[in-house]
Amino acid sequence: MALRAIGLNCTLKASGQSSTDKMIALIADALERQGVEFDETIRVAGLNIKPGVTSNEGEGDDWPELRSQILENDILIFGTPVWLGQMSSIAKRVLERMDAFLDETDDQGRMPSFSKVAVLAVVGNEDGAHGITANVFQALNDTGWTIPATAVSYWVGEAMGSTDFQDLPEVPEKVSQAAAMLASNAAHLARSLQQSPYSGTVG
Amino acid sequence: MALRAIGLNCTLKASGQSSTDKMIALIADALERQGVEFDETIRVAGLNIKPGVTSNEGEGDDWPELRSQILENDILIFGTPVWLGQMSSIAKRVLERMDAFLDETDDQGRMPSFSKVAVLAVVGNEDGAHGITANVFQALNDTGWTIPATAVSYWVGEAMGSTDFQDLPEVPEKVSQAAAMLASNAAHLARSLQQSPYSGTVG
Amino acid sequence: MALRAIGLNCTLKASGQSSTDKMIALIADALERQGVEFDETIRVAGLNIKPGVTSNEGEGDDWPELRSQILENDILIFGTPVWLGQMSSIAKRVLERMDAFLDETDDQGRMPSFSKVAVLAVVGNEDGAHGITANVFQALNDTGWTIPATAVSYWVGEAMGSTDFQDLPEVPEKVSQAAAMLASNAAHLARSLQQSPYSGTVG
Amino acid sequence: MALRAIGLNCTLKASGQSSTDKMIALIADALERQGVEFDETIRVAGLNIKPGVTSNEGEGDDWPELRSQILENDILIFGTPVWLGQMSSIAKRVLERMDAFLDETDDQGRMPSFSKVAVLAVVGNEDGAHGITANVFQALNDTGWTIPATAVSYWVGEAMGSTDFQDLPEVPEKVSQAAAMLASNAAHLARSLQQSPYSGTVG
Repeated sequence: MALRAIGLNCTLKASGQSSTDKMIALIADALERQGVEFDETIRVAGLNIKPGVTSNEGEGDDWPELRSQILENDILIFGTPVWLGQMSSIAKRVLERMDAFLDETDDQGRMPSFSKVAVLAVVGNEDGAHGITANVFQALNDTGWTIPATAVSYWVGEAMGSTDFQDLPEVPEKVSQAAAMLASNAAHLARSLQQSPYSGTVG
Repeated sequence: MALRAIGLNCTLKASGQSSTDKMIALIADALERQGVEFDETIRVAGLNIKPGVTSNEGEGDDWPELRSQILENDILIFGTPVWLGQMSSIAKRVLERMDAFLDETDDQGRMPSFSKVAVLAVVGNEDGAHGITANVFQALNDTGWTIPATAVSYWVGEAMGSTDFQDLPEVPEKVSQAAAMLASNAAHLARSLQQSPYSGTVG
Repeated sequence: MALRAIGLNCTLKASGQSSTDKMIALIADALERQGVEFDETIRVAGLNIKPGVTSNEGEGDDWPELRSQILENDILIFGTPVWLGQMSSIAKRVLERMDAFLDETDDQGRMPSFSKVAVLAVVGNEDGAHGITANVFQALNDTGWTIPATAVSYWVGEAMGSTDFQDLPEVPEKVSQAAAMLASNAAHLARSLQQSPYSGTVG
Repeated sequence: MALRAIGLNCTLKASGQSSTDKMIALIADALERQGVEFDETIRVAGLNIKPGVTSNEGEGDDWPELRSQILENDILIFGTPVWLGQMSSIAKRVLERMDAFLDETDDQGRMPSFSKVAVLAVVGNEDGAHGITANVFQALNDTGWTIPATAVSYWVGEAMGSTDFQDLPEVPEKVSQAAAMLASNAAHLARSLQQSPYSGTVG
């Protein structure tokens, strides 16, 4: 069965051009070269993801549908811009909603995210990618996601700079190479887990 | 001139009882014993703080008013619950909006938050307070706030526990002592900075 | 081929009883129940791991031998105590030495740690496990390790407490369950990667 | 009484040129322009700072003397390079040794570091400064240090770059400006605290 991937763009902007989109697309292209079907990139700020830690926070909450779409895929590309050296509040909100996975385990104690792979796209004008990677990996792993080797593609400019990733004349070669390796690792691991999922704990 | 303090409760709930409220109140009481007037605790989830990094994100944005109220005070008590070991998305949103301070400097390069003091209240069922403290202090300091010695009052239960701070039969003595020391330090430093603000850089 | 696991205890003590040992042993036992052979737990503070970011920092450096032993195994149990809410300086030193992996790639761009799995054991008197998990996962993933779902077993006591994990009358059931799930996931993923390693990027 | 400042360089190298030295010197010069006397920059890797959390770990431990020298000053410039996006293991060791301050309080509950100010110098080839700032500020504040507004001077290059700060043709203007503001704030706050120290909690 073909592997499928989805991108979440956690920029603060509900629409319009986004450097985070560009980094997600770079990963998506690399995944497609690995035979993975790419679903689409969701602009989370364009939805109404309500605060809370259940899977449905009631009327107007767009999380239940987004949650379903995420879980129909095998690979999650989690994309966030850098603000104050940290992930966006939109990114934080998405992770928070996944807290509910901890209570949604099956008979073998497996969360809905088990046997799925998550990777990270981070872009900013300057410093912040490593700190964000730490916090995102911890939250994604707590909520059941598996992290392949070298699972982040990032770009930030020189300290206190103001260039946007989307305005670079071309994608730096090191960024392309990192995305290619990430995609190779993610596709490989997602395929292994698709063919042979975690068994969970047997009572 | 009397010092004034305000509390921000960044719980995910728009209303109702909150352990974070209780910790903020503990600090507020300790500050009042130091002669500080306590304004009020704002329930941020009850407001519409729009995503963005300017001081006014347009129609319906409650940040401009909250921003003014925060800046009318000398001491900020920044309160957040723990989710997945991290600050809430509401807390992250508030910090994000303060990013605008970086561009709102006066002739001496001072942000609106300069010469003001910030302290932190963190409560959770289990582990997470130190990681949150790190990220909040970094973001608050980047946006111009001064951090007094031992500036966090926190309570979390044993690993993977589920007790709420507000359900403890009584406040643990170590928590009260930490809040008292925090208040003593915060009031002292805020008073010093009120009497003699940072001069900024003189061209 | 049988899977093999090794434990690194990054306590500050060169010898003697250690709560971190106890948590590593809990994971090791759970791994053995999954058919994994457990090598041994290395007390890193008893060795001379010199500062630096190469794989051999010269005379007296015990890292080259420890490095070899780590890489002979399929699963790394990285164990650290909590100090000031953060990993130990010994743990930091070990991660730092793995920085050299970034330059030790094979023809397909794979680091020596590729196709190996890392999990985490954290113990402290109080709060700190989530912040440590974030930083350790980021550093391990940067240096090529794969992180299975729910890859940390931790215990900390109530805020500002002073109980040691090794002095608990018995291991809390939630800790045992977390270790069992971690072991199930780690063994499964390590087996998959042993049978079918990452291919790296093909020029 | 004149204010005094000291620099700690937590590079992994015991001697020789260091980009971290250069950033500390930038801050030291700016402090001298504020009338602060600069003691010296200590190369911590050239000393034997033993692992542990007491103020004296026995024979051969250089911490007791370094600890005294630090505490003879009013301002601490804590300098660390970036490795894997994180502070060095030497920096981590120094913070760990300050854990002992928590038990070395006077009759008013004040640690030896109370009424002293700490600032941060971070340099790396690429990304990592914000994550380091978070962890260092948390640890320094826990151990009693006060953090002035905008208390970090950092430089890192573009993502995955390899330029050293000391090899830049000149110090970027934004870095000089940040150092000047940091020095202005640190000197001001240290002077206030020298004239009027924290009173601690009065039983």
